[in-house]
Amino acid sequence: MTLVVQKYGGTSVADLERIRHVAGRVARDVRAGERVCVVLSAMAGETNKLVGWVDGLDPANYDPAEYDVVVSSGEQVTVGLLAIALQSIGVPARSFTGWQAGVATDGAHGKARITGIDKAPILAALEAGKVAVVAGFQGLAPGDRLATLGRGGSDTSAVALAAAIGADRCDIFTDVDGVYTSDPRIVTKARKLDRITYEEMLELASQGAKVLQTRSVALAMAHKVKVQVLSSFSDEPGTLVVDEDDIVEQQVVSGIAYSRDEARLTVLGVRDRPGIAAAVFGPLAAAGINVDMIVQSVSRDGVNANMTFTVTRSDLKRAQAVLAEHQATIGFGEILVDDDVSKVSVVGVGMRSHAGIAHTMFQTLADKGINIQAISTSEIKVSVLIDEAYTELALRALHTAYGLDGS
Amino acid sequence: MTLVVQKYGGTSVADLERIRHVAGRVARDVRAGERVCVVLSAMAGETNKLVGWVDGLDPANYDPAEYDVVVSSGEQVTVGLLAIALQSIGVPARSFTGWQAGVATDGAHGKARITGIDKAPILAALEAGKVAVVAGFQGLAPGDRLATLGRGGSDTSAVALAAAIGADRCDIFTDVDGVYTSDPRIVTKARKLDRITYEEMLELASQGAKVLQTRSVALAMAHKVKVQVLSSFSDEPGTLVVDEDDIVEQQVVSGIAYSRDEARLTVLGVRDRPGIAAAVFGPLAAAGINVDMIVQSVSRDGVNANMTFTVTRSDLKRAQAVLAEHQATIGFGEILVDDDVSKVSVVGVGMRSHAGIAHTMFQTLADKGINIQAISTSEIKVSVLIDEAYTELALRALHTAYGLDGS
Repeated sequence: MTLVVQKYGGTSVADLERIRHVAGRVARDVRAGERVCVVLSAMAGETNKLVGWVDGLDPANYDPAEYDVVVSSGEQVTVGLLAIALQSIGVPARSFTGWQAGVATDGAHGKARITGIDKAPILAALEAGKVAVVAGFQGLAPGDRLATLGRGGSDTSAVALAAAIGADRCDIFTDVDGVYTSDPRIVTKARKLDRITYEEMLELASQGAKVLQTRSVALAMAHKVKVQVLSSFSDEPGTLVVDEDDIVEQQVVSGIAYSRDEARLTVLGVRDRPGIAAAVFGPLAAAGINVDMIVQSVSRDGVNANMTFTVTRSDLKRAQAVLAEHQATIGFGEILVDDDVSKVSVVGVGMRSHAGIAHTMFQTLADKGINIQAISTSEIKVSVLIDEAYTELALRALHTAYGLDGS
Repeated sequence: MTLVVQKYGGTSVADLERIRHVAGRVARDVRAGERVCVVLSAMAGETNKLVGWVDGLDPANYDPAEYDVVVSSGEQVTVGLLAIALQSIGVPARSFTGWQAGVATDGAHGKARITGIDKAPILAALEAGKVAVVAGFQGLAPGDRLATLGRGGSDTSAVALAAAIGADRCDIFTDVDGVYTSDPRIVTKARKLDRITYEEMLELASQGAKVLQTRSVALAMAHKVKVQVLSSFSDEPGTLVVDEDDIVEQQVVSGIAYSRDEARLTVLGVRDRPGIAAAVFGPLAAAGINVDMIVQSVSRDGVNANMTFTVTRSDLKRAQAVLAEHQATIGFGEILVDDDVSKVSVVGVGMRSHAGIAHTMFQTLADKGINIQAISTSEIKVSVLIDEAYTELALRALHTAYGLDGS
């Protein structure tokens, strides 16, 4: 008997009609002999409404533990409703909030990490022939407080539960029907991938592809959970995220991602001395600001240098403030900022064994007259920072250059 | 240091502005040196919305345990929001769901009864100098399931918590400013009572006065919790519900209540034999239908009798069906029904020592040409069933007859 975890996002449970549709889908799988554990998000829009209320009372300094109490109510509603919808069509079911499902987290309210799952309650329900309907995005923090995992946390809940109960597969139902070689809204020749490796999915997710949350992919990779991304609105098979060994014919490049969520800072006239990078980036790290691409350019006089790096746009103002605060200790002239930039990334495990991938990227962009402002690489990824206006052009040109265009 | 429980209903926390208002009120009491435990309902309208969703999926046979999961989310939102609102004006606070507050219930989902309260979590928060903000209406059923207490259950939560933590007073904030001698919307000369006994409040609540929920009054009486009913929109003192000994000058009649929630059934031609009442009311009791006023009239032939009784209007159709199902075993001719009736009740502990209270009632109604269809009495109450159209006339006439009119 196959044991599957099925996760449905907010758009799939946005109203009673869609909840009934999900119930019908689950019922079909149950009647085909599968044992099913469902993980749900809140109704689309509901979490934003709840967050808006918290912001309306105290936008600046609200207690994240209380934020979690308010926000975690959204999934409690959908799990109860789906259990009722399943029962009404003759499928035994019972709901679980995060704490009832034995999901333990750390105390980092608003962005908690799962520290462990007691699989007993869910397995007991499954063994009693019931569909277990579990609230995603939430768990129990130390001191019996409610905690949420942060945006997209329901994917992480689903993968963690799949690992804990030893599920054969974790199906992530969403509003797209799989993972594409690039964003099909921009690249019309983008193709759906049948399979992709954990490593590639991880890079694509962290480079801007929104189909799966980065943490959930890392967790699936660590626990070898077979993940499938598919649409709740169609019956087509989706994309399987699997081990490299499970992919017979590997493409050199699997996908091209982009992110407009970037901002560039250039710190002018820093003294080129040992420890200068630590002096610049230490205060940013202390403020919890992640720095991504870094370029240090030595000036002609060999004394002063410029330091260029990127942060997420939402951190830009805070990053400027932190640097200004430390101007005396760091020692620099001025700061230039630009948030009209985007990051384009080429991802593929084939890069490990194929030379020239980066060169093809640089040449293709040069041929289109696109200037590269910064570069960063990993074993299976090359990212470039470009002028935001060229994003679509770059994606289409690279998609063709790497032979990814569908017929 | 005074320890008070303050309960705010749905209209008092209906939006962010009102939640801020409640926070301000609590802050004032905290700064005056009181230790405060707040009990909240869901935002006005929210519980109805959640119940509507459940009904939309499965109006007939929904699982009450899952209903409770959905519906109990409403108070979780308001307690988190009030804790944030309090913190934002410098008052330390923390929220508790029912299960976090140690409220244990039985397994009667949708109308659970509180079986015990572990006072430790609330007392720990209070002793740490925090306002404890507790979700009313809910608790933890056996098997770690969420349970709700049924409509109006937040009053019961507040009184039970007040008893458990040994509060000096339980203030029930509502949208009226106290308990009146009758409904002021109908009887313009109705007066607010400064004090009323538990027994009278219990009768008034169970006879239709909506200001306090019956169960909460019974609980307050059993545990001698001093309850005050007052408005969250004014600073006037409200009505204290206290022991009879705490009332110096007792009125003979304290209040006149009414209920339009009645329906009358008359079972014609039952055989007048021992056990006939059991035969009629047994099946109704088994179906969970409460029967209130009962009149058995013996027929002239001494063989057949008519049985008249009342049920709540929402039970009328079911009561008819149950009786029809048992027609053969009970033995009767036909059933007449009338739901254009209302029940008017005169309540006062002074009745114990004063004769003629019932007679005044019957005479007053007769003088106004109002026919009495049934009568029931208790030690401190006389209720009559009348044609619904005469409700307002009866209330005003009785209010004057018992000398309750204000100036």
